[in-house]
Amino acid sequence: MKIHLHRIAMMSPGDTSGLAALIERGEVDPSTIVAVIGKTEGNGGANDFTRGFATQSFQLLIAARLGVSPEQVASRICFVWSGGTEGVLSPHATVFTRVEEPIGEASSSTAESADAGRLTLGVATTRDLLPEEVGTTTQVELVAHAVHEAMREARIDDPRDVHYVQVKGPLLTPALIADADRRGKTLVTRDANGSKPYARGATALGVAVGLGEVERAAVTDDVIAKRMDLYSSVASTSAGGELRHCEVLLFGNSAAASSAFSIRHGVLNDVVDAASIRVLLGDAPAQGAVAAMFAKADASPDGRIRGWRTTMLTDADIHYERHARAALGAVITSIAGDPAIFVSGGTEHQCAPGQMPIAAIIRH
Amino acid sequence: MKIHLHRIAMMSPGDTSGLAALIERGEVDPSTIVAVIGKTEGNGGANDFTRGFATQSFQLLIAARLGVSPEQVASRICFVWSGGTEGVLSPHATVFTRVEEPIGEASSSTAESADAGRLTLGVATTRDLLPEEVGTTTQVELVAHAVHEAMREARIDDPRDVHYVQVKGPLLTPALIADADRRGKTLVTRDANGSKPYARGATALGVAVGLGEVERAAVTDDVIAKRMDLYSSVASTSAGGELRHCEVLLFGNSAAASSAFSIRHGVLNDVVDAASIRVLLGDAPAQGAVAAMFAKADASPDGRIRGWRTTMLTDADIHYERHARAALGAVITSIAGDPAIFVSGGTEHQCAPGQMPIAAIIRH
Amino acid sequence: MKIHLHRIAMMSPGDTSGLAALIERGEVDPSTIVAVIGKTEGNGGANDFTRGFATQSFQLLIAARLGVSPEQVASRICFVWSGGTEGVLSPHATVFTRVEEPIGEASSSTAESADAGRLTLGVATTRDLLPEEVGTTTQVELVAHAVHEAMREARIDDPRDVHYVQVKGPLLTPALIADADRRGKTLVTRDANGSKPYARGATALGVAVGLGEVERAAVTDDVIAKRMDLYSSVASTSAGGELRHCEVLLFGNSAAASSAFSIRHGVLNDVVDAASIRVLLGDAPAQGAVAAMFAKADASPDGRIRGWRTTMLTDADIHYERHARAALGAVITSIAGDPAIFVSGGTEHQCAPGQMPIAAIIRH
Amino acid sequence: MKIHLHRIAMMSPGDTSGLAALIERGEVDPSTIVAVIGKTEGNGGANDFTRGFATQSFQLLIAARLGVSPEQVASRICFVWSGGTEGVLSPHATVFTRVEEPIGEASSSTAESADAGRLTLGVATTRDLLPEEVGTTTQVELVAHAVHEAMREARIDDPRDVHYVQVKGPLLTPALIADADRRGKTLVTRDANGSKPYARGATALGVAVGLGEVERAAVTDDVIAKRMDLYSSVASTSAGGELRHCEVLLFGNSAAASSAFSIRHGVLNDVVDAASIRVLLGDAPAQGAVAAMFAKADASPDGRIRGWRTTMLTDADIHYERHARAALGAVITSIAGDPAIFVSGGTEHQCAPGQMPIAAIIRH
Repeated sequence: MKIHLHRIAMMSPGDTSGLAALIERGEVDPSTIVAVIGKTEGNGGANDFTRGFATQSFQLLIAARLGVSPEQVASRICFVWSGGTEGVLSPHATVFTRVEEPIGEASSSTAESADAGRLTLGVATTRDLLPEEVGTTTQVELVAHAVHEAMREARIDDPRDVHYVQVKGPLLTPALIADADRRGKTLVTRDANGSKPYARGATALGVAVGLGEVERAAVTDDVIAKRMDLYSSVASTSAGGELRHCEVLLFGNSAAASSAFSIRHGVLNDVVDAASIRVLLGDAPAQGAVAAMFAKADASPDGRIRGWRTTMLTDADIHYERHARAALGAVITSIAGDPAIFVSGGTEHQCAPGQMPIAAIIRH
Repeated sequence: MKIHLHRIAMMSPGDTSGLAALIERGEVDPSTIVAVIGKTEGNGGANDFTRGFATQSFQLLIAARLGVSPEQVASRICFVWSGGTEGVLSPHATVFTRVEEPIGEASSSTAESADAGRLTLGVATTRDLLPEEVGTTTQVELVAHAVHEAMREARIDDPRDVHYVQVKGPLLTPALIADADRRGKTLVTRDANGSKPYARGATALGVAVGLGEVERAAVTDDVIAKRMDLYSSVASTSAGGELRHCEVLLFGNSAAASSAFSIRHGVLNDVVDAASIRVLLGDAPAQGAVAAMFAKADASPDGRIRGWRTTMLTDADIHYERHARAALGAVITSIAGDPAIFVSGGTEHQCAPGQMPIAAIIRH
Repeated sequence: MKIHLHRIAMMSPGDTSGLAALIERGEVDPSTIVAVIGKTEGNGGANDFTRGFATQSFQLLIAARLGVSPEQVASRICFVWSGGTEGVLSPHATVFTRVEEPIGEASSSTAESADAGRLTLGVATTRDLLPEEVGTTTQVELVAHAVHEAMREARIDDPRDVHYVQVKGPLLTPALIADADRRGKTLVTRDANGSKPYARGATALGVAVGLGEVERAAVTDDVIAKRMDLYSSVASTSAGGELRHCEVLLFGNSAAASSAFSIRHGVLNDVVDAASIRVLLGDAPAQGAVAAMFAKADASPDGRIRGWRTTMLTDADIHYERHARAALGAVITSIAGDPAIFVSGGTEHQCAPGQMPIAAIIRH
Repeated sequence: MKIHLHRIAMMSPGDTSGLAALIERGEVDPSTIVAVIGKTEGNGGANDFTRGFATQSFQLLIAARLGVSPEQVASRICFVWSGGTEGVLSPHATVFTRVEEPIGEASSSTAESADAGRLTLGVATTRDLLPEEVGTTTQVELVAHAVHEAMREARIDDPRDVHYVQVKGPLLTPALIADADRRGKTLVTRDANGSKPYARGATALGVAVGLGEVERAAVTDDVIAKRMDLYSSVASTSAGGELRHCEVLLFGNSAAASSAFSIRHGVLNDVVDAASIRVLLGDAPAQGAVAAMFAKADASPDGRIRGWRTTMLTDADIHYERHARAALGAVITSIAGDPAIFVSGGTEHQCAPGQMPIAAIIRH
């Protein structure tokens, strides 16, 4: 298996000209695209439609190039967008292609140590969730199952070879809340913006259960978005109103892969933790070898950084996730070298409270 | 002359408890306070009243402790607040005290090389400006004259020993615009928020002329906020609706000073320029010797960072200065060690376009 | 008893020049001021410091005029500010004075019908609340008791003669949350902005219990901010970080009053309910007799207005209270004639869900 | 000619289910659609992508139903979206259909008085503008020419029968500014958000010239967005980054039309001018006969409403257009009956300064 990736600048959420040019020049075969991960310049909240616009736009382009319908594109390519390009963050898409190479499989060996392999990825989706399942153990189980599927597809046997699991799932929109009301169902919350912690938390716990980081028995409905000592160190989850199911995009290294890249992960202790970023990247920035970065940003639980109060949690004008993304995005850029970084907000059950996951794809 | 400084956390713009405690404990003699520079948690725009609230609150405390009126405090202490604690920036005040020590004067010598001295500061103010003078050469001249005064007060002869000149001046409020209208006067702009570039630009050119960085003859009304190749490398200027005159607060090193601190300055090439910050600070962060940091943040003229588009200049929800402060504040914090940093926005005539001034006070 | 009121324009939260001029001209005797109610141009959220700034500024002015300390002013005058002048709403203060007139008391008769009397007001405060009491039945009881006190002071016997009860109480700030944590106490919520519904709800239920609109026995901790069929029709409550106790400002009509004003109240069915406003005001607008207006604004529970979806509840950029205040403020202005109206947000337990209280003071 | 219209609720900018249902039920023949005018729930600024998303979504639906390409839909249907549903405004689309009826033409007579006719509309577009033409007399002339074309198409001879001319044109995006730079061209401004007044002003003057409200000779480059005594009373113009040409959508009454509707226009004196709205609508609201409303909202030039200061022009968090739309939208809703109203911001050269155009389509 060979994974390749291209980072593409976007002039707007509807701008697909970068991918169009790559296809035109023969650098990307659209039939090999398996995933698109990117940042769009919305507010990142419940009324951020830049994600849906970008998805529709990329589906249209790829459908036209492949001569299939946009619906067919939707069923074969996983799109993950995070809204909010605060500070220096740059709107962009990273397009992943996958080509199967039967020969590579022969060299696969579970006996090899973790990290010896090359970049691989697997994609899996759950069924559509009912509104009353969002933020519950049902969602946890569905995601855990999808994680197993994605590992198989990525040809990863050892969970330690998994370095980054991006999950996108639904949040509770006013329409979904109304639907549950009509059917007399109880929801984890009735607040559209307030449903994000539950939605992100349940999918993160799904990754944790799927990778064995947390026991399934430890997860009940009332720990979701509350018992923050239960977590995954490699999950990065988001929630949006544009989908009903969960999409799992799992990255790791596999001896069965012959990609020109590998992936690493680390843990950040706060949004200005330059030291951990330097350790993770080593000399890759100096060699121009950083191919892509993925991180989560959040306010520290008490709103403090290095002992001083920040105003993230009390600001009624700008949401704390926006402050956090602005800060972390700038610090990563200052080290990794450019601002086309995937930094998204909300770390419920993604690392211990106050910590945040970060992953880097390195070019060999 | 001996300058001392204390950084104080603030729980709100009206919170003066930190200074009250220092006075109570005898660590600060309120009669020696000459300047207060700080960040408040407002939006940094024309309707940011956190600056006025903080000024009023500190004046009240100091007046009560000295047994004088708040007006008397206002006339002897220079208050400079920058609104906007985006990202990790922490609301705080840095209180500067000055004690005259006649002996120190004897060792003063202009023959000594720049930077051999210790921290000194001088304060000077202009007369109140008429609305029609804001953003004009009249303001430039008044500030240049005040810079000379402040240098004399700071006992600095060589402009190369000046490392940071903070100037606060008026912007055009709706009330001032109405006043000019009544008197039939023409203004540089009729837009309150839009007057900030002119107001900040004119005071920065005043510093440049005062320090000999720009020839007086080169400055005409129509270069202000337009001919950006004219600039000061050490000016940091802001504009607010709460004052009518300009206040110049000039920092440098002088052989006539016996402070336990010295000051340095540098130039940033963008808001994620970690390399320049590291060069400026050297091993001070490792030694815990960074006493205070002052920097300006701005969007790059074309909105790009390291070749990638940012959304600072097209964001209608969050002003570009807020994005820029969030980014630079986080990067400085990641190197200097804490977020109680004075980062303010708007760099008209403060360094070359795209560049930004930064200064650090180091404890010896 | 004679109540008089003056509405004063404010150029900023710190602008007290309007009241200074009234005192100077002898139109207001500062020793008779009992309450100041106004709108300030902040965001209305947890980081809105315009309210504290306005309070400090008015206290300073009145203290100087009376020759007492600001603390003494604070103990005798009730200040109520609502942040947020969205749409056309105008920053202003309404200053209430009260002069006792023993003769008026003789004509007092409880046999007279409701509304036969003239404007009266009473002020009462509770003790400081502990953080863990905010949003609980303890707060309900304290406010109910203060309502009884205020009625006595206003010389109102029949609760039907009460038309508007403004209560201001504390919300949970990060500092208060930290304090409770240190003492191991449980709070109704740990989210500063999220504590407002509880804080406003408990004080509204306190009014309802105090006026007999709701039975004390019906109020338990778990109905607060949840069982919205329990409510007062005349309460208007707000919560801010600048105070620890609750202040009750009760308005009604009394035969014991000889004011040139009377007060009425009504109920709005949505934020564009012009019909109810017209019924309430009658021909007062045409006669220029509207002296002051007070109303609450809120999003409808399902976000819909007249069957159409609004975006108030899903907007992550602008809080729904700001949308609601903008709408209702404009509609009232279009009928009553000017935008110096007290419209504040959040109607927990203030009228039935979807409804909002409104009161008008009419000049005779 | 017979014009019909349908107002359709939208759950998001990409929601076309309302139109799909109308087509499914046979109530709308997609081949007869000539224009779609609507409000989307973006911020209305340079980074509002909800307009482009809505256009793409409606083009896709109609293309699928007609069996043509989205590009063909774009060339035959005029889409006008205004971003920003502040206050109670509801996201919606009004879909206009036109069927030619040759018999109606016979009854056409220019001798008939204005307003005797029934609703008609004409559409015309200009060529693509170069960035350096945006906001100049070139744009004015192109639009004036398109207005004449649209009048012919609408079978209106007398400009007095024209009641509402919606024009959408380009603004200067960073990409266009960069393009002009590369070619060494001068622009009216280099600020993307700041180009809107020029872009809207030039198209409004184009309407004024086209309808004879302003002499062509009176319009030079330096009056655009400056000499505000030159204006059209029926123009409503907007600018967006999603198009390069100008689209003119002209509404009026014609004896050649047999529609079940007619159109009227009026002038508002401020955003709370209920009296003018009542005069315009007469008893239409009581009869449920208001089919659609179109209005422009703006801050008054001095920021004052009925003598009191508003904070629209000094608010750095919320743009003044958003305050103005919130206010006017609520007042119109309170009279006309529902919030699915097209209220857009910015009135450069659209009515005299401080005034705003409003139009209503009435069902007979």
